[in-house]
Amino acid sequence: MLQMKEAKNGIITDEMKQVAQKEGIDPEKIMKGIARGRIVITKNINKDIPALGIGEGLRIKINSNIGTSEDLVNLDLEIGKARVSEKYGADTLMDLSTGGDLENIRRVIIENITIPLGTVPIYQAAVESVKNNKAIVEMSPDKMFDVIERHAKSGVDFMTIHCGVTKSIVNHLKEHPRLISMVSRGGTFLAAWMLHNNRENPYFDNYDQLLELAKEYDFTISLGDGMRPGTIMDATDWAQIEELLTISDLVKKAREANVQVMVEGPGHVPIHQIEANIRLQKTVCDGAPFYVLGPLVTDVAPGYDHIVGAIGGALAGLAGADYLCYVTPSEHLGLPSTIEDVKEGVIASKIAAHAADIGRRGREEMNWDRNMSIARVNLDWETQFKLAMDPEKASTYYHRNKTMSGKSDSEPACTMCGKFCAIKILNKELGLKRKPKYEF
Amino acid sequence: MLQMKEAKNGIITDEMKQVAQKEGIDPEKIMKGIARGRIVITKNINKDIPALGIGEGLRIKINSNIGTSEDLVNLDLEIGKARVSEKYGADTLMDLSTGGDLENIRRVIIENITIPLGTVPIYQAAVESVKNNKAIVEMSPDKMFDVIERHAKSGVDFMTIHCGVTKSIVNHLKEHPRLISMVSRGGTFLAAWMLHNNRENPYFDNYDQLLELAKEYDFTISLGDGMRPGTIMDATDWAQIEELLTISDLVKKAREANVQVMVEGPGHVPIHQIEANIRLQKTVCDGAPFYVLGPLVTDVAPGYDHIVGAIGGALAGLAGADYLCYVTPSEHLGLPSTIEDVKEGVIASKIAAHAADIGRRGREEMNWDRNMSIARVNLDWETQFKLAMDPEKASTYYHRNKTMSGKSDSEPACTMCGKFCAIKILNKELGLKRKPKYEF
Repeated sequence: MLQMKEAKNGIITDEMKQVAQKEGIDPEKIMKGIARGRIVITKNINKDIPALGIGEGLRIKINSNIGTSEDLVNLDLEIGKARVSEKYGADTLMDLSTGGDLENIRRVIIENITIPLGTVPIYQAAVESVKNNKAIVEMSPDKMFDVIERHAKSGVDFMTIHCGVTKSIVNHLKEHPRLISMVSRGGTFLAAWMLHNNRENPYFDNYDQLLELAKEYDFTISLGDGMRPGTIMDATDWAQIEELLTISDLVKKAREANVQVMVEGPGHVPIHQIEANIRLQKTVCDGAPFYVLGPLVTDVAPGYDHIVGAIGGALAGLAGADYLCYVTPSEHLGLPSTIEDVKEGVIASKIAAHAADIGRRGREEMNWDRNMSIARVNLDWETQFKLAMDPEKASTYYHRNKTMSGKSDSEPACTMCGKFCAIKILNKELGLKRKPKYEF
Repeated sequence: MLQMKEAKNGIITDEMKQVAQKEGIDPEKIMKGIARGRIVITKNINKDIPALGIGEGLRIKINSNIGTSEDLVNLDLEIGKARVSEKYGADTLMDLSTGGDLENIRRVIIENITIPLGTVPIYQAAVESVKNNKAIVEMSPDKMFDVIERHAKSGVDFMTIHCGVTKSIVNHLKEHPRLISMVSRGGTFLAAWMLHNNRENPYFDNYDQLLELAKEYDFTISLGDGMRPGTIMDATDWAQIEELLTISDLVKKAREANVQVMVEGPGHVPIHQIEANIRLQKTVCDGAPFYVLGPLVTDVAPGYDHIVGAIGGALAGLAGADYLCYVTPSEHLGLPSTIEDVKEGVIASKIAAHAADIGRRGREEMNWDRNMSIARVNLDWETQFKLAMDPEKASTYYHRNKTMSGKSDSEPACTMCGKFCAIKILNKELGLKRKPKYEF
C-alpha cells in the first residue's frame, strides 16, 4: 500500500487520518494534498510509528541531525542526542553517521525514537568503499543502490538522495567556480565520482531504479541539494537554480510513479533572497514540500549558527517552507559533541517554526502564547515554567537570578523589577481583577 | 551648538563628518538627514565620545540594557556587563538601574565605556520617591523634570521619556483591557500616577519644558512606548497605535525646536505584523529613527528570548527599523545576573542587525562574510576564529570537538566530516588552485 496511490484513488488511509487529527484539518484535504504530491507522510511501509505529515497547509516541521563521524563514535552520546531531540520537539531525526558500525547505530537509534528517521545513504556507500581500501570515487553504482535498499529494509522513513547533481552542473563549476564550490557532503562524493569516472550521476541516470525501490517501502525521497550555497556570496546562483530545475523534473517523474518526494533547499542565503527562493521552488516544483537547511543569513557567526538559522528558518517558514533542518552552535566548527548542542539547535529551530506558524495561521496558533501571557499577568511562575519551550532552563534562570539577589521565592515579582513590577502596579491601580482563563 | 540647528543651516559639524566616515556616506547626506530629523546623533553636548548616527540610510545599531535592580546591586557586575557589551559590538548602552546609588552607578558606567549612554529618568524619580517614604504615585512633576536635568548634566546622551502615555489612553484601557495591560515600567509609573492623581502626564503636559532641557544639552529624546504590547495577543491594537499617533505629533514639535528625537516601538509582535508596524511608524512619524525592543515573535520561549528577539529584530531591520534593543536569555525571568547573559544578548542582536544590513545594502555589506568564506574554503581556522563575531566561542567549540574526538589540531578538517570533508575532496577533484584573496 502506497500512500500516494491510495490518495489518488480517493482512499483515506489510517495514516492520513492521524495526520488530519494532529493538524486539526479535514482528512479529505490531507488525502488531496498527498494525491497532488504537496503533502508527504514520511513513513516506511514496515514501520509502526505515529504518522507525520509535511507540506502544504500543515504546521512547519523541524528536523534534528545526529550521527557519528569517523572522528567521534559514541553510541551513548548519539542515543542521548536522539532522545533530547524528540523531547524538545524535533518532528524527525536524521542519522548522518559516517563512523563506527553504521548498521548497528541506525538500528539502535530507531529503537530509541518514535519519530520518523531519515538518512543519506551515499555516506554509507562512501564509508564502506573506504573500509574496503577503495577510494570514494571507486564506489560502484551497485553499492550506491544496495545501501538504499538496506536502509529501506531497516525501516528508514525518508532518504536524502542527490539525484539533481548532474555531470553538466559539475562541469559548469570548473568554468564558473564559486567562492565555495560545494559544501554538501553527499553531493561532493557524487561530484568527485563523476569527475573521476567521467560518468553521469547513477542516481540521476537510473532514477527509475530508485523509484522502484521507493515504491517497495514507501520511503519518501528527499531530493538533496548538492549545489546548496556554502556562503551567502554564492546564493541563488546558476548552479543552485540549475539543480533546482533538474529536480523539478524528477519531482514530476516521482509523482507519476506514486513515490512521495520532498525537495531540499539552501543553505547560506542572505535575508533578502529567502522569499524569492521559496517562491521559486514552490512554483517550479508545483508545490512539492520544501525542506530548507537553515537558511543561514550570514557567514560570520560560528558558535551561534543556531541563531543565524532561526532567523532564516522563520523567514523561510513565513514565505512557505514546510520543513526546517536545525543547525547547532557547533555548525562550521565540528560535529556537535554534546547533547546540549543538539538541544540548543532543536529549540532555536522550534522557535522559528512556531513563530512562522503564527505568521501563517494567525490567532489559531497563538493559544500557547495566550496561556503563557495569562500566567505572566497572574505572576504564576509555575505555569510559566510548565508552558515554556524549555521548562528546565526557564526555571533554572528564574531561580538563579533570585538566588544571586538573595531574594526568597515567596516574593511574586521577578528580580528584573522587584517592587517596581509594572504588572503588580498596574493590576493595583487599574483595579484589574479580571483574570483571563487558561485554555489548555 | 545643536546638531539639528547646524544641519538646518547647512553646516556639517565634526560629528556629522565622523558619522559619514564610519558609514561610508557623503557628509552632506548625513547633514540633510539630521536637518529633516531622519538621522540623530546621540551625543550629549558635554561629552567627548565618537559620534554615532542612527537613522535613515545608516547601518542598523544595537543597544544593550544593563543596570541594577532593588534586588541585585553589584557595581562590578554592571561594569563587566558594560564592557562586554562594548566589546561584542553594542553601539549604545542603556543604564536602567533602579537599585543602589544611582548617581554613582551612572557615573562609573560612563567612565567605563566610549559608546553613547541612554537612561530612563522616570525610574530614578520613582526610586527616590520610594526612598523618601512616598509612594511612586506621589512623585512630584518637579522631581520628574529634575532627574532629567541631573541625567543631562552627568553626560547622558539619550533618554527614554514616555511622553505619549496620555490620560485618555490609560482611561481607555479601563474600558478595553488588554490581556496584559502594560509592561513598560516607566509607562506604568506614569499611568499609575495619572490614575491616582487624576492628572495628565507631566511629560506630555509640559513637553515644551522638556524640549528646553534637551536643547540645553542636545541629548536625544527617545519617545518611549509605554503601551508596547507585552504579549503577541495585544500587538498592533488601539492602545499601541493611539500612542504612536500621539508620539507623531511630538516628533513634529521636537523637530521645530531643533531637538533630536527617536521613536520607540514594540515589543511582542507576531512575525506577520512586523513589517506593517515599521511602515506605519515610518509614515506617520515622517521617517523618524525607529528603535524597536525586540520585537519578540512568540511568548513561549523564556530562556531563549535573545533568539526570539533576533528573529523579530532581523525582520524589523529588513523592513526599515534603525535601532534594535537587545534581549537577553534572562528576559521574563529576572534581571540578567551574569555577564554571559549580556554577551549572548548582544551577539544575538548583532547577528540580526548584520543580517538585515546585508538585506538592505546587498553586496557592499558582505565583505566580512566573504572573508570568512575564503577562510573556510582554505580551511584556515585561525582566520575563521579571528573573523568570528565571537572569536573565543568559535575557537573553544572547534577545539572542544577536536578534543572529544581525540584528534590533533594538525588535521585540517573539522570533526564534522574528517576525511570526508567536502571542501577537501572537491578542491582536489576540481583542481581548484585559485585561492581568492582576503579583503580586510
